[in-house]
Amino acid sequence: MIELKRDSLHLSVRDPVATSMNFLNEIAGQYPDAISLAAGRPHESFHSTADITRYLDAYQAHLARDGYGPDRIRTALLQYGRTNGQLGELIARMLLIDEGITVAPDAVAVTAGCQEAMAIALRGLCRDPEDVVLAAEPCYVGLTGAARLLGISVVPVPEGDGGLEPRAVAEVARKVRAGGRRPRALYVVPTFSNPSGTTLDRAARLELLEVAETEDLLILEDDPYGLFGLDDEPRPSLKALDRRGRVVYLGTFSKSCFPGARVGFLVADQTVIDNSGHRRTLADELSAVKSMLSVNTSPIAQAVIGGMLVASGCSLRRAAYDKTLLYRRNLRVLLEALDDEVPGSLRRDGAVAWNRPDGGYFVGLRVPFAADVRLLELSAQEYGVLWTPMSFFYESGGTHAIRLACSALDPDEIREGVRRLVRLIVGQLR
Amino acid sequence: MIELKRDSLHLSVRDPVATSMNFLNEIAGQYPDAISLAAGRPHESFHSTADITRYLDAYQAHLARDGYGPDRIRTALLQYGRTNGQLGELIARMLLIDEGITVAPDAVAVTAGCQEAMAIALRGLCRDPEDVVLAAEPCYVGLTGAARLLGISVVPVPEGDGGLEPRAVAEVARKVRAGGRRPRALYVVPTFSNPSGTTLDRAARLELLEVAETEDLLILEDDPYGLFGLDDEPRPSLKALDRRGRVVYLGTFSKSCFPGARVGFLVADQTVIDNSGHRRTLADELSAVKSMLSVNTSPIAQAVIGGMLVASGCSLRRAAYDKTLLYRRNLRVLLEALDDEVPGSLRRDGAVAWNRPDGGYFVGLRVPFAADVRLLELSAQEYGVLWTPMSFFYESGGTHAIRLACSALDPDEIREGVRRLVRLIVGQLR
Repeated sequence: MIELKRDSLHLSVRDPVATSMNFLNEIAGQYPDAISLAAGRPHESFHSTADITRYLDAYQAHLARDGYGPDRIRTALLQYGRTNGQLGELIARMLLIDEGITVAPDAVAVTAGCQEAMAIALRGLCRDPEDVVLAAEPCYVGLTGAARLLGISVVPVPEGDGGLEPRAVAEVARKVRAGGRRPRALYVVPTFSNPSGTTLDRAARLELLEVAETEDLLILEDDPYGLFGLDDEPRPSLKALDRRGRVVYLGTFSKSCFPGARVGFLVADQTVIDNSGHRRTLADELSAVKSMLSVNTSPIAQAVIGGMLVASGCSLRRAAYDKTLLYRRNLRVLLEALDDEVPGSLRRDGAVAWNRPDGGYFVGLRVPFAADVRLLELSAQEYGVLWTPMSFFYESGGTHAIRLACSALDPDEIREGVRRLVRLIVGQLR
Repeated sequence: MIELKRDSLHLSVRDPVATSMNFLNEIAGQYPDAISLAAGRPHESFHSTADITRYLDAYQAHLARDGYGPDRIRTALLQYGRTNGQLGELIARMLLIDEGITVAPDAVAVTAGCQEAMAIALRGLCRDPEDVVLAAEPCYVGLTGAARLLGISVVPVPEGDGGLEPRAVAEVARKVRAGGRRPRALYVVPTFSNPSGTTLDRAARLELLEVAETEDLLILEDDPYGLFGLDDEPRPSLKALDRRGRVVYLGTFSKSCFPGARVGFLVADQTVIDNSGHRRTLADELSAVKSMLSVNTSPIAQAVIGGMLVASGCSLRRAAYDKTLLYRRNLRVLLEALDDEVPGSLRRDGAVAWNRPDGGYFVGLRVPFAADVRLLELSAQEYGVLWTPMSFFYESGGTHAIRLACSALDPDEIREGVRRLVRLIVGQLR
């Protein structure tokens, strides 16, 4: 039997992030009783498997109301289908109701989760080796991983305390260009970011759109957590504020519905013009990429999400409000627990400090020592608590910080998790 | 509003094959009454949407028998899950029963259709720009498209009349190596190929495995049509004959069940060894690639296919036998119609000729003129029949040939389609 050498395989197999995440999963498996402040999974209390059938039925009823006979419904659910999927209209309606985003249905592409949407957008937009993507750092690992797989360089733009700074984006873009490369797009989670929890205010958003215009960038706006604010204040997405077609919007139903459908989407209403003057939407053009990744998104999975949208009147903000309330409670509990449990002595000079996100699943915590995988293993074994080293989200750096997630836990677990974490920190400083 | 220039986008957006396929779809849309000998879709008569629920129930019952409580079942269907999926055991059992292939469940990765399995295998195996993949030509467009997206060169190995010739593979591999590039793998559909309909006999299969060994190639064996022979003779897959771990097997449930689930898989039981001597299966290593493409395959879609496998006792050969019989009938009807309808005068000197596949969806037809998209448009408009130019499946060449598909039609349509096609041919030769 042959043996393959691991270093004969592609870099993305040996991706340090994949390796780290794998290590995290292994530790979680080894210490099943540890409380996981690492897992950014949705809470499991909202749905039962009966919802699958309920949504499938709702979607079929919707198609029937649209004039589909039984044969056409069967074809829609069981046969190959349109590359960009069949939910364009429902998603466009949802974006209008929930986000004030106006797009045509054919500017929407349904994808195998938001991960595929990222891979499609990156691939379509970056033509040459010198085409690079900027990304707010710390950065969600799915973006850097997809880029590595496609051989696309990601140039980090360090976040400030308030999140990504538009001026820093312009600076990095100019530097990249001066180095002979072409900055094509900027990836950012402007609302309740993963991993840092930061949110851009309206002024920063408008400024960022200006920078995109000046520096000729597209913005890949990823918005998985926007529904989950600590308050009900509207935080307009970049796409909603975009007047010049600079934003490609990436979405997912993993948090607003459930991950098991693996349905995400991208909105790309930009016009693409070919040499003969023909115009199509960017979403149409990107369908060629989608077709070579997965042909189309499972129509059954689409039907489940379609039924959920129909059943909710295409308003996730309303339909997922129970989720909003739970994540709101969890984030408050996490912040209160940190306030209550971290002794003042540790906070002196900002030795241990954390931010106060306005929503989402995550809080960033600074610690006065290297929070690496070795420490994580000790933390699991001796203290019974898991967390994610913030360095996983950096090209280099982020060594003295931790990402805390509170989405999948109940309040008592969050409080106990924080107590254990504080014990670890105290233990390290002894 | 900005306008993007099409040639600023990645090559895969402007993929000539994607463009051609798009053109084919547009023509099909423009002439809905034309009979399509182009569509290689499964026939729609086998399933109803009620099967979705039936399979979902069967899978949940299976999990319950395996000791899963309601909460664990909910998690399995609705939550994020293992990157390589949850059907490893059922698929391994199916491969043993149907194909005589013995693999461990953890050598199986469930993918978003076979298309994703191709992309994952290509990406993982090709590390450097000089790593290339050989492919039997004419070649399924999904393989060349995925390679283009990943920046991987595909070197064609021309098929002979009986399909791929092992000696030709060895020659091309050596030539590639002599040119300073590294042939990593060979892509082939050994049984009832798409598009040519050819099948390798047992001797050719064994010889091909020898060539893989001598030339240090992995074989990517794609097997979507193996169930659909004109007879019930066993045709052992390369994977079943493989004694040295040279074959990565790619499978799909789109034909044996239905495409709407978008569930495929890859089997990669090769050992990968890292610099510290640790060993993992290739499937495990490739999971890092899968995670950056789509995180994991929709657990709901997996549950549908899992339920189908459970309900069929993990034998598709048995469960899909009604499909076998229908496709068998259709292929016979197509071959008979060609025999009946193509006048002897056209066959003289092999001007018009076709092969006689032992099974599958496709027949290759040679014609004495260029069968290009211009002619296809005329064919749709004037003769009411669609087909696929064989040139779509060639890097260059295949200009005087046509792929005929018979899978989605009923016998009368096949016969009428062939009559129309003959009229087109006669018209062209006038």
